[in-house]
Amino acid sequence: MSAEPGTVRPGGRTARVRAAVLRAAGDVLAEQGFAHLDLADVARRAEVGKTTVYRRWGSVTGLVADLLAEMAEESLPRTETGGVLGDLRANARLVRGTLADPRQGALFRAVIAAATGDGRTAEALRRFYEVRVAEWAPCVEQGVARGELPVGTDASEVVRAVSAPLYYTLLTTGVAPGVAAADRAAEAAVAAARAGVFVVRA
Amino acid sequence: MSAEPGTVRPGGRTARVRAAVLRAAGDVLAEQGFAHLDLADVARRAEVGKTTVYRRWGSVTGLVADLLAEMAEESLPRTETGGVLGDLRANARLVRGTLADPRQGALFRAVIAAATGDGRTAEALRRFYEVRVAEWAPCVEQGVARGELPVGTDASEVVRAVSAPLYYTLLTTGVAPGVAAADRAAEAAVAAARAGVFVVRA
Repeated sequence: MSAEPGTVRPGGRTARVRAAVLRAAGDVLAEQGFAHLDLADVARRAEVGKTTVYRRWGSVTGLVADLLAEMAEESLPRTETGGVLGDLRANARLVRGTLADPRQGALFRAVIAAATGDGRTAEALRRFYEVRVAEWAPCVEQGVARGELPVGTDASEVVRAVSAPLYYTLLTTGVAPGVAAADRAAEAAVAAARAGVFVVRA
Repeated sequence: MSAEPGTVRPGGRTARVRAAVLRAAGDVLAEQGFAHLDLADVARRAEVGKTTVYRRWGSVTGLVADLLAEMAEESLPRTETGGVLGDLRANARLVRGTLADPRQGALFRAVIAAATGDGRTAEALRRFYEVRVAEWAPCVEQGVARGELPVGTDASEVVRAVSAPLYYTLLTTGVAPGVAAADRAAEAAVAAARAGVFVVRA
């Protein structure tokens, strides 16, 4: 995984093996949960040699960490609508769509559940959200620059405030939030930001 | 558990057995997680006959459901400060204190993780939050009556909006939110409510 630049062609064998293994791992997580994830089973599903999987990922938690890294890499770039509410509504709908998708939603629930009991998965999950929050934070920074939000607003906090109610609904009720809830999450975060709630206190 | 009124003295043997068994179940959940919960082990820890535990709770999920029911019964009543922001700040600090408590925080993470893979636990968790939200919703209703929040504000949605960022932080970073984050959660929910975000659309 720490190949020198140029030694791995994009779309080459190494990349194909990784894609197949991570797809198989994601399938098992979504269908059966973290407790059923097993390297030999994943190798079989991915039609990849068991030795390759053991050598490259080492453990179930190594596999989940790499899956989260790939999900962060592959995530959609942020939307620019010209206004902070439009941008964050797009973000909320994207997050909602992921959580409401049968495979993706089950996968996130499985990984979040696994993270409660496993430090390495927790760390990989934390990094995943850091990448996603950093991708969307400029929407808020531009909102501040345009005068829509107060100077000093913590952009990352606002982005997290959009996601929070959507994850909370899924995790405490088992039901993914609807589109209206996504729009409300964006509106609530923007209203709080406008009121100065997310301004960093010196 | 469906004893006739009067047949079970409060503080009598049945109540003592329940308290001991649920305390033991909570200890195992907090220390080792849902996967390690075992009725025979709980009976041993609680110093209660195995047959009693099997007869009364039936299964691990039955035990977790009753533990959540007890936690809802025992939860602290809402605080009344005379203003909606003060009330919801008290709520946010209570939720934060629970999540930051080593035993209670671990217990909630274990139960939320279990709920992602088990329907009965998910249903018990959903009921737990329903009870808690119903306990605190009058703070918001009084805020509406006092003219602090717009008429038509969905009180339950506001209470959930206070909890959401606190749970989100714990579940996605593994670290319990601090007191400042709790206060910010209450301020954000009130700012959004004031802006009309939680007014029910006809």
